[in-house]
Amino acid sequence: MNIDRVVLAERPKGEPTKENFRFEKVETPKLQKGELLLKVKWLSLDPYMRGRMDGSKSYAEPVSIGETMQGECVAEVIDSQNNGFKVGELVSGQLGWVSHAISNGKQLRKIPKSNIPEQTSLGVLGMPGHTAWVGLNKIAKASPGETIVVSAASGAVGSLVGQLAKKKGLRVIGVAGSKIKCSYVTEELGYDGCINHQSVASVGEFKELVARYCPKGIDIYFENVAGITLDAVLPNMNEFGRIAVCGMISWYSGKGLQEAMAFPKFWRTVLVKRLRVNGFIIFDHKGSFPEFRKEVSPLIQSGEIKYKEDIRDGLERAPESFLELLNGGNFGKMLIRLK
Amino acid sequence: MNIDRVVLAERPKGEPTKENFRFEKVETPKLQKGELLLKVKWLSLDPYMRGRMDGSKSYAEPVSIGETMQGECVAEVIDSQNNGFKVGELVSGQLGWVSHAISNGKQLRKIPKSNIPEQTSLGVLGMPGHTAWVGLNKIAKASPGETIVVSAASGAVGSLVGQLAKKKGLRVIGVAGSKIKCSYVTEELGYDGCINHQSVASVGEFKELVARYCPKGIDIYFENVAGITLDAVLPNMNEFGRIAVCGMISWYSGKGLQEAMAFPKFWRTVLVKRLRVNGFIIFDHKGSFPEFRKEVSPLIQSGEIKYKEDIRDGLERAPESFLELLNGGNFGKMLIRLK
Repeated sequence: MNIDRVVLAERPKGEPTKENFRFEKVETPKLQKGELLLKVKWLSLDPYMRGRMDGSKSYAEPVSIGETMQGECVAEVIDSQNNGFKVGELVSGQLGWVSHAISNGKQLRKIPKSNIPEQTSLGVLGMPGHTAWVGLNKIAKASPGETIVVSAASGAVGSLVGQLAKKKGLRVIGVAGSKIKCSYVTEELGYDGCINHQSVASVGEFKELVARYCPKGIDIYFENVAGITLDAVLPNMNEFGRIAVCGMISWYSGKGLQEAMAFPKFWRTVLVKRLRVNGFIIFDHKGSFPEFRKEVSPLIQSGEIKYKEDIRDGLERAPESFLELLNGGNFGKMLIRLK
Repeated sequence: MNIDRVVLAERPKGEPTKENFRFEKVETPKLQKGELLLKVKWLSLDPYMRGRMDGSKSYAEPVSIGETMQGECVAEVIDSQNNGFKVGELVSGQLGWVSHAISNGKQLRKIPKSNIPEQTSLGVLGMPGHTAWVGLNKIAKASPGETIVVSAASGAVGSLVGQLAKKKGLRVIGVAGSKIKCSYVTEELGYDGCINHQSVASVGEFKELVARYCPKGIDIYFENVAGITLDAVLPNMNEFGRIAVCGMISWYSGKGLQEAMAFPKFWRTVLVKRLRVNGFIIFDHKGSFPEFRKEVSPLIQSGEIKYKEDIRDGLERAPESFLELLNGGNFGKMLIRLK
């Protein structure tokens, strides 16, 4: 049997292209004692993967040229030489952009049997959901009555941030990249409003729109995108406001950097408004995962919290789907379903 | 009797000039019941006053054109219709750039009799000292074994930050604007090192110098100046580092703004290194003043903590002295001693 995998063929110069990836087939090695063979059912595509494609070390080592692209998967045990895992069990883990994987079981999480779809372990009940929960509760320390603005509001992280914030009693305003996404955010997710950044003609108009949607100013900005959204949000921040810096997708490939705000203006706002700005990365917060699951799982089960998936079929579509994700072409959590 | 005072004659365009100020004499009004007449002995000059000269509201209302410049003073009660104050008592308070003032006593602090010089109530035991203490302990949350970099290290705030940090068991590196200031910082204040930013030829060289002085990276940056110092510090910040944003004197009059770092680079560092950046203003922290005084007064009394004053004689020298302060021309806490 062969394993299909997608490797990094070359480092992107600016925006990634399909040529940066290469498909390979390798033979499945024989299982050793303690190992198990996994068949991947779902692969998660997430914006952080863009950073791993660059050569420079950030918080994690980059993917080397010729190495398999990293990614979380849901997989089924199809052979096992490990007493801890039985054939037929479902697990999630960092297996990469692959059809099958061999594992010693150490970094895997078992997915409990329930009526919740298994792939939520990659989305609303997985890393993106945990990111939303940590950012809102541990980083921004949201309180009832405050106003929060969430960028990429219909995305895997943003859609949960806003719903949890609403449940907590905050005023919640989203920013998203199309009219359809904005309708979903307000009508399905229950946000108090959503601004379509594709429809604004200038940063000035954007600022005024934000001000109109946030008549009491902004206490928390959940930052996923940077770019002109940050520009429009910053002057509307309240004194003692918090910015949870989770991502900056609009700048990942060097686009829009020229139009970024002047740094001294930002620095002055931080001082004058006594802002707290906090970068965070979910991999530092593994300890709170059980608490997060315990709180959010029942809300998914009951349908109180909604989520949306953007499912593409076949590993061969992973590169093009990932490029779409970076440009906001997805609508909901981007997932690859493997045959 | 006349009161001498310095008023804001016009708003500065960029760097302030002496023409922005005007001297006036006004007649002393008759004391009403509950009031006291104060003779100012010391006037404090501080960088925050630059912000009050601009028309735009920041955290405090600006000084209006024709209004007395704001400032903290140490003064002696020379007449009193208020049972709470006796002639001869010393007080500190926000009286402005004046020779005398009438007060109802409400916003005044009595200066207890001790062998500590009275004017320390404007410096190391006053607002600047309290700023240092709050920034280090409450904002940056310094811990033993960490490395802190303090800009404007020989100034009223910086000189205390570093000494308190040393006592706490941190490695302390200063940045100051002359060879003499740096010698003072290391030899008198006991910093582990001090970089003279006037001697660096480029930002690149500055970065390397900071790296050499901080072999384990920087956990805390106490920001007083912004500009190229911030540029040199940022790439040397450790993961989970904190930046306490207290001031940005090099940008107060619009100088050097063009050379500021690109905002996206900063934002990426905040995310990748999970930095916490916190603006703070001492006027929000009045509640902790007694705790600060209780901790630091004995250290001043015993000589364990050192301080330096830059004393100029005569209210007429206030404008020129203030302009010097903005350009780093002071060496120690800038004070005007009145006749």
